[in-house]
Amino acid sequence: MIDIQSDVGQTRFEIESVGVTGLSYPIAARDGATGAVQRTSAKWRMGVALSAERRGTHMSRFVAELQKRAAEPMDLDDHYRFAMSICERLDAPRADLTTEFTWYREVKAPVTGLVSMLENHVQLRSVTGPRGGKTLQVTVPAKSLCPCSKAISERGAHNQRSDIRVAVTFAPDAPVLSFERLMELVEQSASSPVYPLLKREDEKLITEAAYDKAVFAEDIVRNAAQRLYDLPNVSRFEVEAINRESIHAHDAYARVVFER
Amino acid sequence: MIDIQSDVGQTRFEIESVGVTGLSYPIAARDGATGAVQRTSAKWRMGVALSAERRGTHMSRFVAELQKRAAEPMDLDDHYRFAMSICERLDAPRADLTTEFTWYREVKAPVTGLVSMLENHVQLRSVTGPRGGKTLQVTVPAKSLCPCSKAISERGAHNQRSDIRVAVTFAPDAPVLSFERLMELVEQSASSPVYPLLKREDEKLITEAAYDKAVFAEDIVRNAAQRLYDLPNVSRFEVEAINRESIHAHDAYARVVFER
Amino acid sequence: MIDIQSDVGQTRFEIESVGVTGLSYPIAARDGATGAVQRTSAKWRMGVALSAERRGTHMSRFVAELQKRAAEPMDLDDHYRFAMSICERLDAPRADLTTEFTWYREVKAPVTGLVSMLENHVQLRSVTGPRGGKTLQVTVPAKSLCPCSKAISERGAHNQRSDIRVAVTFAPDAPVLSFERLMELVEQSASSPVYPLLKREDEKLITEAAYDKAVFAEDIVRNAAQRLYDLPNVSRFEVEAINRESIHAHDAYARVVFER
Amino acid sequence: MIDIQSDVGQTRFEIESVGVTGLSYPIAARDGATGAVQRTSAKWRMGVALSAERRGTHMSRFVAELQKRAAEPMDLDDHYRFAMSICERLDAPRADLTTEFTWYREVKAPVTGLVSMLENHVQLRSVTGPRGGKTLQVTVPAKSLCPCSKAISERGAHNQRSDIRVAVTFAPDAPVLSFERLMELVEQSASSPVYPLLKREDEKLITEAAYDKAVFAEDIVRNAAQRLYDLPNVSRFEVEAINRESIHAHDAYARVVFER
Repeated sequence: MIDIQSDVGQTRFEIESVGVTGLSYPIAARDGATGAVQRTSAKWRMGVALSAERRGTHMSRFVAELQKRAAEPMDLDDHYRFAMSICERLDAPRADLTTEFTWYREVKAPVTGLVSMLENHVQLRSVTGPRGGKTLQVTVPAKSLCPCSKAISERGAHNQRSDIRVAVTFAPDAPVLSFERLMELVEQSASSPVYPLLKREDEKLITEAAYDKAVFAEDIVRNAAQRLYDLPNVSRFEVEAINRESIHAHDAYARVVFER
Repeated sequence: MIDIQSDVGQTRFEIESVGVTGLSYPIAARDGATGAVQRTSAKWRMGVALSAERRGTHMSRFVAELQKRAAEPMDLDDHYRFAMSICERLDAPRADLTTEFTWYREVKAPVTGLVSMLENHVQLRSVTGPRGGKTLQVTVPAKSLCPCSKAISERGAHNQRSDIRVAVTFAPDAPVLSFERLMELVEQSASSPVYPLLKREDEKLITEAAYDKAVFAEDIVRNAAQRLYDLPNVSRFEVEAINRESIHAHDAYARVVFER
Repeated sequence: MIDIQSDVGQTRFEIESVGVTGLSYPIAARDGATGAVQRTSAKWRMGVALSAERRGTHMSRFVAELQKRAAEPMDLDDHYRFAMSICERLDAPRADLTTEFTWYREVKAPVTGLVSMLENHVQLRSVTGPRGGKTLQVTVPAKSLCPCSKAISERGAHNQRSDIRVAVTFAPDAPVLSFERLMELVEQSASSPVYPLLKREDEKLITEAAYDKAVFAEDIVRNAAQRLYDLPNVSRFEVEAINRESIHAHDAYARVVFER
Repeated sequence: MIDIQSDVGQTRFEIESVGVTGLSYPIAARDGATGAVQRTSAKWRMGVALSAERRGTHMSRFVAELQKRAAEPMDLDDHYRFAMSICERLDAPRADLTTEFTWYREVKAPVTGLVSMLENHVQLRSVTGPRGGKTLQVTVPAKSLCPCSKAISERGAHNQRSDIRVAVTFAPDAPVLSFERLMELVEQSASSPVYPLLKREDEKLITEAAYDKAVFAEDIVRNAAQRLYDLPNVSRFEVEAINRESIHAHDAYARVVFER
C-alpha cells in the first residue's frame, strides 16, 4: 500500500510536536525511589518533532510501542528511556511524552491512626534532546486557612480545600525523589493535610491545627519552594497553589518558578 | 434528493428522545418575573420522541427553529412554548428542551455595600405532553460551616464552598418565580452567601456570621426545601447541596426530592 | 465528644440520599461472568436515605467501610452486597452506591490481528430496597457513518466517533452479563468498532466496512436495544448514542428506554 | 483593621504570578478590527508578580477593577491597557491577564445560504513588561478527512471533527487582526468548515469537498502557519490541531510554534 506519510513535502515549518493525545492506556506505575508499584489507568500524550521535509509521522507506532511496554512497571527513569526509544523508533529529532495517573498514598488519621487511601495526581514528563529532561509533577489536595480572616475575626476563619501542584525537573541522569516524599513535602506547606477517613477526635485536631497555621496561597508556594530549593539534583521547579476560596465562587492562586 | 430519515422502519422500539446536544447558541435570557434580560452563550439539548414506525428525525430542523428564535428574549414560559413549536414542527409525540447558561446577579458586600456580579447557573427545561412541565433549575454557590467541627473544636471550624442546586417544576400554565428570588432563597439556606468582591470589613462579618450559622449538607437541603414547600404553584422540587469539604479531597452531598 | 449528627430534628423532609461523592478510591474490579480482575482507580458516590427524624448521617462510616472492602475483588453482585452492608452499618432505610472506572478490553485489529487495550467505561450502581436493583452501565466508543451523507454524495460520507452508553438493570438475584460481552454487543450496533492500534491494512478494512454499514444515532440505539431485549434476566435497559458529528460542532443523540 | 498582606517577609522567592482564577464575570467583547460587540460570560484569570519582600497581594483589587471595567466594550488593545492599569493599581512589577469566552460567528451554509451562529472560542492574553505582549487565541471547530484512509480505501475515508487552536502574539502597539478573519483563516486550513445548520444539498457539498481536500493534522497546522507567516505585525504564533479520530478512541495532534 502507498505510504502517504512519507511524502517529501515542501513546507518551511518544522512541526514542534505531533502524535497522539487523550489516549487512555494501562500503566504499572513505579515509584523509582521506593520501588512501590500501582496498576491503574493513565492518560498518555506521545509526540515527536518532525522536520520540515517530512509530511507526516507514523501515528500507529506510538501505540504499538506503548502496547509492548505497558505491562511492565515504569518509573520516571523508565519513562525517560521509553521516550528515547520512541524517538529512535520514529526516527525523530526529539520525543516528548506525558503520562498522568492517580497514585494512592496510604495516610493515617492524626489521632485515631485510622488508615485510608488518599488520591494524589502524578504526571511524568520526559523530553529527549539537549534541552530536555525528566519531570515529576504531583498535585496534592490540602487545607488552607486564611491569615487575614483569622486576624480580623472574633471567631472562626475561612478555610478551604487547596490543590497544590509541584513540577520538579531533574537532569536525565540524576536520581529522582520518591513520589510520596514529594507529596508529603507539598502538603506540609499548607495549613493541614486532608484525609479520606477522619473520626471526631481527628477532625478536632485538624480544625485546631489548621487554625494555628494560617497561610495565604503565597505562603504555601514559598513554603514548598524553600523545601524544594534544598533538594539535590533539581534543575528547575514550579509550584502552584489554587485555593478554592470558601467566601467566593472563584479561586485564589499563586505560583513560583525557579530555575537553577 | 432522497430522504432517508423518512424511511418506514420495522422496529419495535420507540425512541424516547432524539436530537441535538452540546450545541452552543446565543440566548437573550429573560427572568419571567422581573423582565430583566441578559444576553449570553447557552448550551442547548433539543429532542423529540420518535415513534417505532419512523427511522429518523430531521436534525437540521432543531437548529433552524433555534436560529429563528435565538435573538428574541426568552423566559421559562417562552421556553415551554418553544418546545411546543418544536414538537409541532418535527411532527413528534413529545419534545424536550434543556437550556443552560450563566446568569449574573448583582450582589452587595454586606458591610461596605460594594457591588459585584455573582455567577449563578440556570437551566430551563421544558417537556411537552401530559407528563410534561416546565422546570427552573438554579445552581448557586454558598458557604457552609460544619456544626460538628465547631462543636468539638476549641477554636475555628472547617468550612468550604458549597454548590446548591434547586430544580422547581411548575404546571405549564402556572406563573413562575423570579430567577433571582429563587437564588436568594437558596443561598439563605447555607451558612453564608459568597461574593466576588469583599473588603476586610465584609470578610470579618462573613467569617463570624458563618461561624454563628453552622449547617450540615442535610440542613442546607432541608432549609431550602421548607422555603420551597411554602411557594405556590410548585408541583415538584429537588434540592441538592454539594459541600467541597475542606478536610477531605472528596465532597459531601445531600438531596431532597418532593412531589406534591 | 458530642455527636451532633444524632440530634433529633423536627423536619418534615426525608433526605432521599446523603453521603459522599467525588471520592477517588482504588478498586479491584471483577467481571462477574468471566472472573477477570483489573486493579484501577474508581470514582465513588455512596449514599443512604435519612428519615425525617434524624438530623445527619455519619459520613466517615462510608469511607471506613470502603477502606475495609477496597482491596478485595468486587463484581456487580459484590457491589450490591456492599450496598446492603452500608445500609445496615448506617442503620438506613435504603443505600445507593455508584462506582465508575475504566475497564480495558483487549482488542485485535481486524486484518493484522495486532493486539491493543481499548478503554471502556463501566459504572456499577446498586440500590437496596424494594424498588432497587443492580445496574451495569458500559460506555463504549465506536464509529458511525451517516446514511444520509452516503446516499446523497458522489464520493465519501461523513463519519465520526460515537459514545454509546448502555445501562442494564438486573433483579438483585439474577446472574449478570460479562462486562466484555455487553461492550461487544454495543459496539456491533454502530458502523464499526474502533481500536487503539491499526496498521494500514486494518484502516482500509474499517474505512470500507463502516462505509458499507451506515447508521443513524437512531439505528445504533435500536440495534443495541434489539440485542438487549433478547437477553435473559433484564428488568430494564437504557441505551444512548452520542455522535460527535464531523460536519457540526455539536452532537447528535438518540435514546431508548425499555422497562419490562 | 490590620493588613496582613502588607507584612514584610523574608523569603528568597519572588512570586511569578498571584491572583484570582476561575472567576466568571460578564464581558462586552469587542472585535478591535471590525468594532462588533458581543455581550457574554467570560472566565478570567488576573495576576501580578510579587517581589520577594512582600508577603501577599490584595486579592479584592482585581475584582474591584474588573467590576469598574466590565460593562464597557473591551477589545484586545483595551485588554492590554486594562492589564497595565491592574499592574499600576496593584503596584506590581508585572501583570498578566487571561480572558476566555465564546464568540459567535454568523456563517452561511455553502449551497442553501442558510444562516446560523457558529461557536468559536476566544482567549485574550495580556502580559505587561519588557517580555510581555498581547495575544489573541481562537479555537475553531472544523472537519478533517484522512489522506491515508482515502488513498488506501476503495470507498469512503475516515473523517472527524477537529479543534484548531491558534495563538497570535502582537507587539503592544501593533494593530490587531479581526477575530473573524483569524477564525476564517484557520478553518480554511482543514478539509472543510463545519456549520450548525445544513440542509441535504449543503451536506452533499461538504461531504464531497472534504473528500477532495484530505489533510493530516500536520497539514492543517502547516497550512495555517503559512497564512499566519504572511500576516504583518505578528511576533510569535502557535497552531495546534487536535483531530478527534473516528477510527480510534484517542486523538491525533500536531503543533507548530514560530517566533520571528
